[in-house]
Amino acid sequence: MVEHKNISQAVIKRLPRYYRYLGDLLENGVDRISSSKLSELMSITASQIRQDLNNFGGFGQQGYGYNVSYLHEEIGNILELHNERNMIVIGAGNVGRAISNHTDFYKIGIKVTAIFDNNLDAIGTKINEIEVFAVDKLVEYIENNKVDIVAITVPKDSAVRVAAAVVEVGVKAIWNFAPVDLNVPQGITVENVHLTDSLMTLSYNMNNECKIK
Amino acid sequence: MVEHKNISQAVIKRLPRYYRYLGDLLENGVDRISSSKLSELMSITASQIRQDLNNFGGFGQQGYGYNVSYLHEEIGNILELHNERNMIVIGAGNVGRAISNHTDFYKIGIKVTAIFDNNLDAIGTKINEIEVFAVDKLVEYIENNKVDIVAITVPKDSAVRVAAAVVEVGVKAIWNFAPVDLNVPQGITVENVHLTDSLMTLSYNMNNECKIK
Repeated sequence: MVEHKNISQAVIKRLPRYYRYLGDLLENGVDRISSSKLSELMSITASQIRQDLNNFGGFGQQGYGYNVSYLHEEIGNILELHNERNMIVIGAGNVGRAISNHTDFYKIGIKVTAIFDNNLDAIGTKINEIEVFAVDKLVEYIENNKVDIVAITVPKDSAVRVAAAVVEVGVKAIWNFAPVDLNVPQGITVENVHLTDSLMTLSYNMNNECKIK
Repeated sequence: MVEHKNISQAVIKRLPRYYRYLGDLLENGVDRISSSKLSELMSITASQIRQDLNNFGGFGQQGYGYNVSYLHEEIGNILELHNERNMIVIGAGNVGRAISNHTDFYKIGIKVTAIFDNNLDAIGTKINEIEVFAVDKLVEYIENNKVDIVAITVPKDSAVRVAAAVVEVGVKAIWNFAPVDLNVPQGITVENVHLTDSLMTLSYNMNNECKIK
């Protein structure tokens, strides 16, 4: 495998989309695809596809196109989806429940292993067979279990405190749903899902009639 | 107000973040802020901020900085947040429930007015006081009520069918949570929240130790 340092975030953000399209093709029994056909399907230029994949050494063969299963597997490798990772979820509210109940994450190697909340009614219950613990057990849990990703679904002030606490005990990756940008040290990865921001973007675009892909 | 045509999606995607930061400043009683202070707070250059806001006519005053309340209000206007819009939610599963229960959307002028599902146990119940209807009432509902946005939270095959049906009866904006890119005619706005894609991006970055803002 070619070294892949300094790949732009724009390329990285496109990789999951490739992975998703290739997965759909596989499901539909398609075993190879030309770059022009893939380009048409994904509404991006064939040259963009070649450029993106060349960042990782390229995968196409002239006159043959792409082997769907191989390319799917390789993009999965690049995205590290074949490593098993444990995720804990902070907040057993609606978003926390939605994440804990999500059935697709295990397909990309990610398993929710525990949920934390400060609501006494939630503590001790299970969501999708995953136990809900009191937030004051959070640090102890992380110290004693393998935790790769912390999903934060609590309000912004609590989110800031939780992020600081989990980073302090060595967590390297945060999936943040709180409407706040978390200030974390270098070397910690944060991926945000800002629902209200997304809805504001929709609000702008629907009034300015642009089509977003 | 200056006409704002052909603004790049990159700028548009940043506006909600400005709006959020300015809202937080307002909440904390800050009534003006220099571009350098705002720049520091948001970790973007002062020149980027000026450039972004100049797309809409600019709002700063030399030597004074930005009037927080005015700028917040104006960005809200650009994002059309002061128009009331009705949203219906397709799917009363976890994500559908999370959206229907979300308390921040009304602050940006968006109100969930109905939920649709094909699960007999859900139909006729209420989520956050919003009624759940059978999916076969969807078209009729849209024909008889003001529906500005359709949030789709059902699996991908159903999502494709629902999108086609609602576009057919005149819906112009879709907030899509299904892991599929919806193929819609020109003039229809789609904003995607692809949770699994987001988690794959996190997966890549946590293994390549980049920090994303």
